[in-house]
Amino acid sequence: MLNFVLAESALELVPKEVRKLPAVVSDSKRREADASEILLDRSFHHSAMTRLKDSEKRGRPDLVHVALLSVTGTPLYLDGKVKVFVHTCGDVVLAIAEKTRLPKNYIRFRGLMEEALSEKPGTGLIKVRPMGIKELFRSIRADAVIGLSVQGKQMSVEELARKLSAATEPCVVVGGFPHGHFTAETLSAFDELVRVNPKPLEAQVVASRVIYEVEKARRGLND
Amino acid sequence: MLNFVLAESALELVPKEVRKLPAVVSDSKRREADASEILLDRSFHHSAMTRLKDSEKRGRPDLVHVALLSVTGTPLYLDGKVKVFVHTCGDVVLAIAEKTRLPKNYIRFRGLMEEALSEKPGTGLIKVRPMGIKELFRSIRADAVIGLSVQGKQMSVEELARKLSAATEPCVVVGGFPHGHFTAETLSAFDELVRVNPKPLEAQVVASRVIYEVEKARRGLND
Repeated sequence: MLNFVLAESALELVPKEVRKLPAVVSDSKRREADASEILLDRSFHHSAMTRLKDSEKRGRPDLVHVALLSVTGTPLYLDGKVKVFVHTCGDVVLAIAEKTRLPKNYIRFRGLMEEALSEKPGTGLIKVRPMGIKELFRSIRADAVIGLSVQGKQMSVEELARKLSAATEPCVVVGGFPHGHFTAETLSAFDELVRVNPKPLEAQVVASRVIYEVEKARRGLND
Repeated sequence: MLNFVLAESALELVPKEVRKLPAVVSDSKRREADASEILLDRSFHHSAMTRLKDSEKRGRPDLVHVALLSVTGTPLYLDGKVKVFVHTCGDVVLAIAEKTRLPKNYIRFRGLMEEALSEKPGTGLIKVRPMGIKELFRSIRADAVIGLSVQGKQMSVEELARKLSAATEPCVVVGGFPHGHFTAETLSAFDELVRVNPKPLEAQVVASRVIYEVEKARRGLND
């Protein structure tokens, strides 16, 4: 089983300190929903977000959505060979049940995430709990945790895929945020830090390439 | 230059014959927009869509969005080596200016497409005109037009990428619809019909794999 972790993801409900700010209030009115139950989203809450700590890494549920779709549409995932976890910037982990198809429509995805993060009884396909990144890796019992970052050691995606395929419970970690780097805490939890491109790549581009090469590496092993 | 065409895409404004149906009327009220200027979207207009011809292939702007993002995030595209065209089920072609970044947020993407299809003066980054698929291929002056479909001849993505890289003005065509197959007219315009997976794959999964392998093939040629 390949474990895929989207780490420090820019996914959270609007935090208390900005719920009364104009951009949030008007969005919450428009959506007819309480500000405490809507996703923080830079597209709508930009002016309010300047007040937040690490603001540039937060409020991008669209990015999380596209990154997840690039994994959940692959044959490897649909075959039940990939387990997907979303670790958020607020240290919450969403574990997605094997083979679950996520909605391609963003508005439906947003509803699903709001439901999950508000801890409303949902479909049970997404399990949510407060959890730091180290605890997540421990709970996975990963024997190889490889983080991807332009700060890492250059390696081709093929080589990375061979490394992952050689482990029993490999875990590959992609940043779920738009700018910046992993925190020191996250970095310290990796066995290895690898870069697969000289320039930063969007999470969904990296994710789809890694899954594809792991598929090919496994096919090679089975031949 | 690699030409990437998303063909018969499920992208269109709500057609006249269903604009007065309840699902469309209530969505148009909610969005405070005229029904003639909003995208047909199965997530909201499902009940109205049963009246439409070829209904199962239409009304999936979310799918088009995700497929385009899987191309526009790649190094090859960002390097100006891929030209992207969206051909719609209604024979309209949207030509996206080289290196244009599309919004990752679906709501912004939807706004952009509605603006383009309503022929409102936009940013000029998307050129829209009525055009059939054959006329599009002629205008590209493609010397190799390869369509992807499970009905095609089995080939690995690597092999396909080598074929594309060997042409001067290659064109790869992926279906921009959720179910079904290319029409006979589209099929007759291909030089070759290829399948890269035994089961149907989502457009964004195929697209990201093809672009990635073309990148690798070109790197190989330059070594």
